[in-house]
Amino acid sequence: MTTLDPLAASCPAPRAETERVLLGHGSGGQLSAALISNVLVPALGAAAPPGALEDAAVVAVDGVDIAVSTDAYVVSPLFFPGGDIGALAVHGTVNDLAMRAAMPVALAVAYVVEEGFPLADLRRVAASVGAAAVAAGVPVVTGDTKVVGRGAADGVFVITTGIGRRLPGVAPSATGAAPGDAVLLSGPIGRHGTTILSVREGLGFEVDISSDTQPLHRLVEAMVRVGGTAVHALRDPTRGGIASALGEIVGTVRDTDPGHVVVRTAVGSRRVLDMLVGEQLPRIC
Amino acid sequence: MTTLDPLAASCPAPRAETERVLLGHGSGGQLSAALISNVLVPALGAAAPPGALEDAAVVAVDGVDIAVSTDAYVVSPLFFPGGDIGALAVHGTVNDLAMRAAMPVALAVAYVVEEGFPLADLRRVAASVGAAAVAAGVPVVTGDTKVVGRGAADGVFVITTGIGRRLPGVAPSATGAAPGDAVLLSGPIGRHGTTILSVREGLGFEVDISSDTQPLHRLVEAMVRVGGTAVHALRDPTRGGIASALGEIVGTVRDTDPGHVVVRTAVGSRRVLDMLVGEQLPRIC
Repeated sequence: MTTLDPLAASCPAPRAETERVLLGHGSGGQLSAALISNVLVPALGAAAPPGALEDAAVVAVDGVDIAVSTDAYVVSPLFFPGGDIGALAVHGTVNDLAMRAAMPVALAVAYVVEEGFPLADLRRVAASVGAAAVAAGVPVVTGDTKVVGRGAADGVFVITTGIGRRLPGVAPSATGAAPGDAVLLSGPIGRHGTTILSVREGLGFEVDISSDTQPLHRLVEAMVRVGGTAVHALRDPTRGGIASALGEIVGTVRDTDPGHVVVRTAVGSRRVLDMLVGEQLPRIC
Repeated sequence: MTTLDPLAASCPAPRAETERVLLGHGSGGQLSAALISNVLVPALGAAAPPGALEDAAVVAVDGVDIAVSTDAYVVSPLFFPGGDIGALAVHGTVNDLAMRAAMPVALAVAYVVEEGFPLADLRRVAASVGAAAVAAGVPVVTGDTKVVGRGAADGVFVITTGIGRRLPGVAPSATGAAPGDAVLLSGPIGRHGTTILSVREGLGFEVDISSDTQPLHRLVEAMVRVGGTAVHALRDPTRGGIASALGEIVGTVRDTDPGHVVVRTAVGSRRVLDMLVGEQLPRIC
């Protein structure tokens, strides 16, 4: 087993002022983590939050814990088997709240639209946002729409922010996994990414597969009802995939090799599963 | 004085499925209002909020009124005299909360970055977000960063969402103006837009002017401390400008000509000030 620290070894943070943003900086993997930890959070200075970065922040307002999460959705293509950018934008933010055991109370939706984008497609995206929000039981309370010139955006980007109410008595956290914990997977691995791959223009790849995008807050509510405070950590792996999420939460958590995921393969051997370094497939969400 | 209804006459909502999004749909004027009222809100169906659209929504969570506002910032150029997209994104959202008499408690910030964007510029924008947030006294509690390929965005877009705590005992609303009310302007008109115009590439227009972008929540707090419930309506005119804001809140509100703004000119004559129809200067925020 290697003794390399995967977070320190293969992923230099961009430093020189001549450096430029790469697609991999948006991958959700190591380059993303480096950009956030070494550039974006330090730049915030005293405005940055203390402690670990989570899928959603928890803020106390007049004694009530409010969960807040924001995500920009830039998936390409906009429409894919099993969903579209509108549904994905609702599900992703609802799920980020759910990872803090928070049930969605309200959504805010912003659109950045490229001039010339078909109005019918914008209506279709907005209707999908609405349908997904209704299905998740959360109203869209406010929004914004900006239009930029041709070539200044790619069709439409959808940015959703969710406000959530935390379930009482539990406080799952990204850093909450403890030695002895077992990891449960709630669904198949890589299905959404593979779906996007299958329909990505020019890739000439076809397979009968659809995205499993869906809201998970009711599943979390049921888990917490049964498991209570035994639910230590919840993650919704998207861009970095299961490998990056498992880099933080190991299948069985042992304190002998923190930061390393060891996979037992079908033939019984073991190998280290590293965090995603760069961008495997851009713009899956 | 004309008897035309400016909201009904000159601004047909886009209807045919062959129609496309225009820059004017993001203007904050009549075309924007039509897009929101005729396309985006109806598409949301049962997920849409009841009642009037406000700068910020107010949501009750466990008995506590939370104000929520989201805005996508696409200003071009990113850096301009008096500010930049980062400061603007903080001020705009803080001010949208303030228009509901809410003081900012937390901000969420999402970046959509174009591949190849200079890392130094991204750091500069993030530092400006941080400095503006510190100056406004509000932490940035969560965020997201997405990277899209070259030509799929224009440098960087910044999307901020604010959570606010309402000042007790007051409830200003966009529709709260009543006959007999007087309108107070807190600063100069059109200074930010004129600044953007002066530095817009290729316009060959130069003037010694800078944006007056700033947070207004402390001003609102002071007004409410003095005025209490006599503060009926607050607006932060940006894209639609003072003309569009006054279309809803007249200098002296009379019930004889609702929906019409009558301006007394320097030479003593009167003329109707119409709402902005399309896009006068795209991407000022």
